Amino acid sequence: MKAVIAEIITIGDEILYGQIVDTNSAWMGAELSKAGIKVKQITSVSDNAGHITEALDNAKTRADIILMTGGLGPTKDDLTKDVLTAYFHTTLQLHEPSLADIAEIFKNRGRELTELNREQAFLPAACTPVRNVLGTAPGMWFEQNGKVYVSMPGVPFEMKRMMTDIVLPQLKAYFKTPEIIHKVVQTVGIAESILAAKLETWETSLPEHLKLAYLPHLGSVRLRLTGSGEDATQLEQEMQAEVDKLQQIIPSYIFAHGEIKLEEAIGRMLKERGLTIATAESCTGGYLAHKITSISGSSAYYQGSVIAYHNNVKIRELNVNPETLQQHGAVSEATVKEMAANVRLKFGSDIGVATSGIAGPDGGTLDKPVGTIWIAYSDKYKTEARLLQFNKDRLLNIEYTTLAVLNLVRQSLNTTVEE
Amino acid sequence: MKAVIAEIITIGDEILYGQIVDTNSAWMGAELSKAGIKVKQITSVSDNAGHITEALDNAKTRADIILMTGGLGPTKDDLTKDVLTAYFHTTLQLHEPSLADIAEIFKNRGRELTELNREQAFLPAACTPVRNVLGTAPGMWFEQNGKVYVSMPGVPFEMKRMMTDIVLPQLKAYFKTPEIIHKVVQTVGIAESILAAKLETWETSLPEHLKLAYLPHLGSVRLRLTGSGEDATQLEQEMQAEVDKLQQIIPSYIFAHGEIKLEEAIGRMLKERGLTIATAESCTGGYLAHKITSISGSSAYYQGSVIAYHNNVKIRELNVNPETLQQHGAVSEATVKEMAANVRLKFGSDIGVATSGIAGPDGGTLDKPVGTIWIAYSDKYKTEARLLQFNKDRLLNIEYTTLAVLNLVRQSLNTTVEE
Repeated sequence: MKAVIAEIITIGDEILYGQIVDTNSAWMGAELSKAGIKVKQITSVSDNAGHITEALDNAKTRADIILMTGGLGPTKDDLTKDVLTAYFHTTLQLHEPSLADIAEIFKNRGRELTELNREQAFLPAACTPVRNVLGTAPGMWFEQNGKVYVSMPGVPFEMKRMMTDIVLPQLKAYFKTPEIIHKVVQTVGIAESILAAKLETWETSLPEHLKLAYLPHLGSVRLRLTGSGEDATQLEQEMQAEVDKLQQIIPSYIFAHGEIKLEEAIGRMLKERGLTIATAESCTGGYLAHKITSISGSSAYYQGSVIAYHNNVKIRELNVNPETLQQHGAVSEATVKEMAANVRLKFGSDIGVATSGIAGPDGGTLDKPVGTIWIAYSDKYKTEARLLQFNKDRLLNIEYTTLAVLNLVRQSLNTTVEE
Repeated sequence: MKAVIAEIITIGDEILYGQIVDTNSAWMGAELSKAGIKVKQITSVSDNAGHITEALDNAKTRADIILMTGGLGPTKDDLTKDVLTAYFHTTLQLHEPSLADIAEIFKNRGRELTELNREQAFLPAACTPVRNVLGTAPGMWFEQNGKVYVSMPGVPFEMKRMMTDIVLPQLKAYFKTPEIIHKVVQTVGIAESILAAKLETWETSLPEHLKLAYLPHLGSVRLRLTGSGEDATQLEQEMQAEVDKLQQIIPSYIFAHGEIKLEEAIGRMLKERGLTIATAESCTGGYLAHKITSISGSSAYYQGSVIAYHNNVKIRELNVNPETLQQHGAVSEATVKEMAANVRLKFGSDIGVATSGIAGPDGGTLDKPVGTIWIAYSDKYKTEARLLQFNKDRLLNIEYTTLAVLNLVRQSLNTTVEE
């Protein structure tokens, strides 16, 4: 089967001048890829009619699908609609359902419909309008010589909704793309290279139509198995069998199947067991608490935290023994264990975790260079600590430490979460 | 003076498939723009020799400068060097200084130099090598028919260092770009549209060679005044006079001149006055503490925090009166004021701040819908609270609330920080 090729054209000076980062294209690239459509080029062009036309001319020599974002606003900088009207030798005409949508949005905002926004409902006669339920700029779908051109707004949540609800399903139908299934397996606590070595035999044995991708991010690695075929049921069964094999090879590093964050997986494990957790943070300075509380519903298992940035706070609020601090220092196994055990007792939670280290870039010594970090885990059976050694970047050290603590909690809960 | 035009070509399938977001191009676009060079197009292409060549051919019809990133690694997927060698009809030759740099990097990592990495020191004879002090792939600078082509690694920190130290200064010299000066004024607590209305008269009065840009981000707006001219000293004086006028128009919204974050500005204000701060967080769940402690040296003024997610913690650790909680609820002016005042007393700090609200997306009621958030500030003279009302996005609510609290602290300190 011949690959279906797409290109993305983003329109707007604000991307070229670096005022905004083009996150739309990456999202679209990932979604198209998941739908079995290959992105060949992404082109960002200026708000200039000639330049947009040139980009369209170039793209159609390479691609079956040309997706555009941006330039659909109501002001005179926004040229995409006029360019497309000329490009497809057509004229603008009022599209009543779009006008009704726009009027509805203005009504909900309690504002008067302006002439500029009314003009957004005039669309090229040659296009099939693509409904925008979240904003005032409708999308446009054109077909010419077996190729499809779609223009969408640049506002990320409007574009994403349009892609998900309408454009991707229609593209799959139009180009009769094969069935594509993705299975994501989330690992933590193992480096990509070691993981690759452990999986080598299994990976090599995969049939041609199943591909494995390693997607590392800050100390965790997502594994994505992508399969394509004619029969979805059969493909699903075949892939599940491979994922089961994978689970057998590296059971202790897998925390979830599916697109689930580590903090979310831990939240679900805690909830299922009816356990609660409290945190005591020094070097992570609140970031660990933030990660845990970024999950909606975390109040069911999260009690709270003491952020003990000063030693006085460690002594007064966490009952760390002043002698421990004097003898071993704040960044030590003894201190961090007392922090974890005491926050657990103090907050009456089932689990207590703690961090203490030198996040940097200043504050290191010969004995304890920047990046020296102790973390601890405590429950009613045990209190244990680990020493971490990172580098000089303060924010990365905070990120890595937080992940390592979450991984300690996960290891003690020792289970896997399904999407 | 004719504008100098640049184009950026990023090379690599991982961008097209959405496995990474291309942040390099936005950074380069912003830096080039600051240097008086206009970016006309950004093109992301696949790891394919023909495709890279086509992109170069197209770019040189439009631009004076073609900047490439990516495809310089040691593996066979990395094609950029071979493509450029063919494109400029040249051959590879060993570049001894690059080999010395690569050998040094391997020595520092305690690893044996591999043949693959040794090959990275072979560079096209027609190029001027661009030193990479942070990685094993040297950059390449080509000149042909008055146009400049530069190839750089895709690793962001390597590319940024190369651009800043070598490429940007050399481009400015080569194309004799005008003197460009930027002055950044940071505002908070005022919406972009209201700010624009207040500044309209002043902005309209600016001479042609001074341009103002509004760069909004999550409730704060950076104002960037860009001037171009022949004489740097004169331009600097002229721009400073305009910035002084700006300061007179909106004194109470400006927290810093220059690229300084709000949490950093507050840190410097606190340090200068010898003041300390402690935080009590409910709905922000540690994010406020994280923002404060993300600044290196924050231990000089930050004492710590109690994250009181559960009411029990509010009562036990922050001495909130149980009657207050019963009568007014956790999300109330009375509770948040007690939290701020008590954390200040408990931690012995000069300032205490607190947050309590419904971050969402669940947990709202008719009286207190999702996004209802109280914040408070307390020092020895006063304790005051503000009611905020946001929407349903949990993480955005946490971000906006944190910014609002930092702004409360700034208002009480009532000063401006210079870069």
